[in-house]
Amino acid sequence: MNLSVCRSVLVTGCSRGIGLKLAAELAAGRTGPATVIATARQPEACPSLLELSKKYAAVHVVKLDVCSQQSIDSALEEVRSIVGDEGLGCLINNAAIGYSTNINTVTPEDMMTAFQANAVAPLFVTKAFLPLLQTAAANSTGMGIHRAAVINVSSVLGSIELNTGDFKSYAYRTSKAALNMVTRCLAADLSSDGILCVSLHPGWVKTDMGGPRASLTVEESVSGMLSVISGLSERDHGGFKDYRGQNLPW
Amino acid sequence: MNLSVCRSVLVTGCSRGIGLKLAAELAAGRTGPATVIATARQPEACPSLLELSKKYAAVHVVKLDVCSQQSIDSALEEVRSIVGDEGLGCLINNAAIGYSTNINTVTPEDMMTAFQANAVAPLFVTKAFLPLLQTAAANSTGMGIHRAAVINVSSVLGSIELNTGDFKSYAYRTSKAALNMVTRCLAADLSSDGILCVSLHPGWVKTDMGGPRASLTVEESVSGMLSVISGLSERDHGGFKDYRGQNLPW
Repeated sequence: MNLSVCRSVLVTGCSRGIGLKLAAELAAGRTGPATVIATARQPEACPSLLELSKKYAAVHVVKLDVCSQQSIDSALEEVRSIVGDEGLGCLINNAAIGYSTNINTVTPEDMMTAFQANAVAPLFVTKAFLPLLQTAAANSTGMGIHRAAVINVSSVLGSIELNTGDFKSYAYRTSKAALNMVTRCLAADLSSDGILCVSLHPGWVKTDMGGPRASLTVEESVSGMLSVISGLSERDHGGFKDYRGQNLPW
Repeated sequence: MNLSVCRSVLVTGCSRGIGLKLAAELAAGRTGPATVIATARQPEACPSLLELSKKYAAVHVVKLDVCSQQSIDSALEEVRSIVGDEGLGCLINNAAIGYSTNINTVTPEDMMTAFQANAVAPLFVTKAFLPLLQTAAANSTGMGIHRAAVINVSSVLGSIELNTGDFKSYAYRTSKAALNMVTRCLAADLSSDGILCVSLHPGWVKTDMGGPRASLTVEESVSGMLSVISGLSERDHGGFKDYRGQNLPW
């Protein structure tokens, strides 16, 4: 990856798994951004995240519950003071919840909770941080990580086309399909500001959510994701890619 | 259309618009089903619907608020006593709410409310009526309206691929994309019962929801939808079609 052209990256959901590793790789890389903002609902309960911020001066830990507008508003003020006049170069909406809910076990509450966390929250986090993204985008041209970008961490399980019934999860699948629509709506609305927006599938990763049978280590996934993010350009705007850079069908 | 091979059709959201017209056409047609069950949240407040049930003996009006599990359970018992041992041949999940919400006006509540009514409710209505659909499907082979079917009235606005920013509605668009995923999940789960499941776009229709500038009359839309429903076969299972029978991309 080469993300040094991006001054600042904010990653949500950094308490563990992909989010934590994204923050760590961004901070450790010699070609990373100058500022890494790692958010978590309860950072005080995440020793690995706190260690990361001690180890790297670039890392700022910010408390953020993506499902709470009040929390979003507080985080925005904190981030604004961190990034200053340069704005925010890249927002990675990674925080999400996972569910395995088949037709017998799924409840309306599962559906609503997953939708709120996985589709509604990324929209309102993006909406809140939009002024900072616009600031970063204002002094540049073209589209890509050198200007400003919103990365929605989606899932191949949100691909309606590719759902042939192999993995049962009404709640997770509908929430990620909805997130993909959010990506597409945002792409249309952020075009005029030159802010790139994509959905990115991290692969099936050995995390608490992905489980031990998953095919990728978190290192492999994050390495691929950062490489894809580094290379994003205008032709990827409003698209759906996986961690290898392959386009996925909606 | 020829829906006489289908013994009974249940349509949700029959207080007005497409739902009311679907029930009327099904009842009036010489090749309609023997039993038409038209549901509405407050049928007592729908004179047109009550008139319809007076005019045609085939029409049964049942009270159903698709967002309430208690209401779904009550409606199920009523429908069970209407259709008896023959089960339910076709469920048309038509009830929906519309929103025009751009990035400036959209609220989390809009998102949640549209998702609940347009994606969650059709899933739980289908889940509740599944035993009746299975009964209808049990004594037949193949796939189609002659056996048993679930029709989710979706929208081209739920097509992620076709969203190029022309019509702004975060809430409506995400809810219909999520409904399309529900269709696809249901298709996988209902295959073994021989119950066909599709998403169907009615076109842009001059209703209270579609507005007066819409391109189709409700007659044109409903005529097309019923023709498409009549002709559904196994190859349409888990698909997304419009009222002319054209396949739509997810």
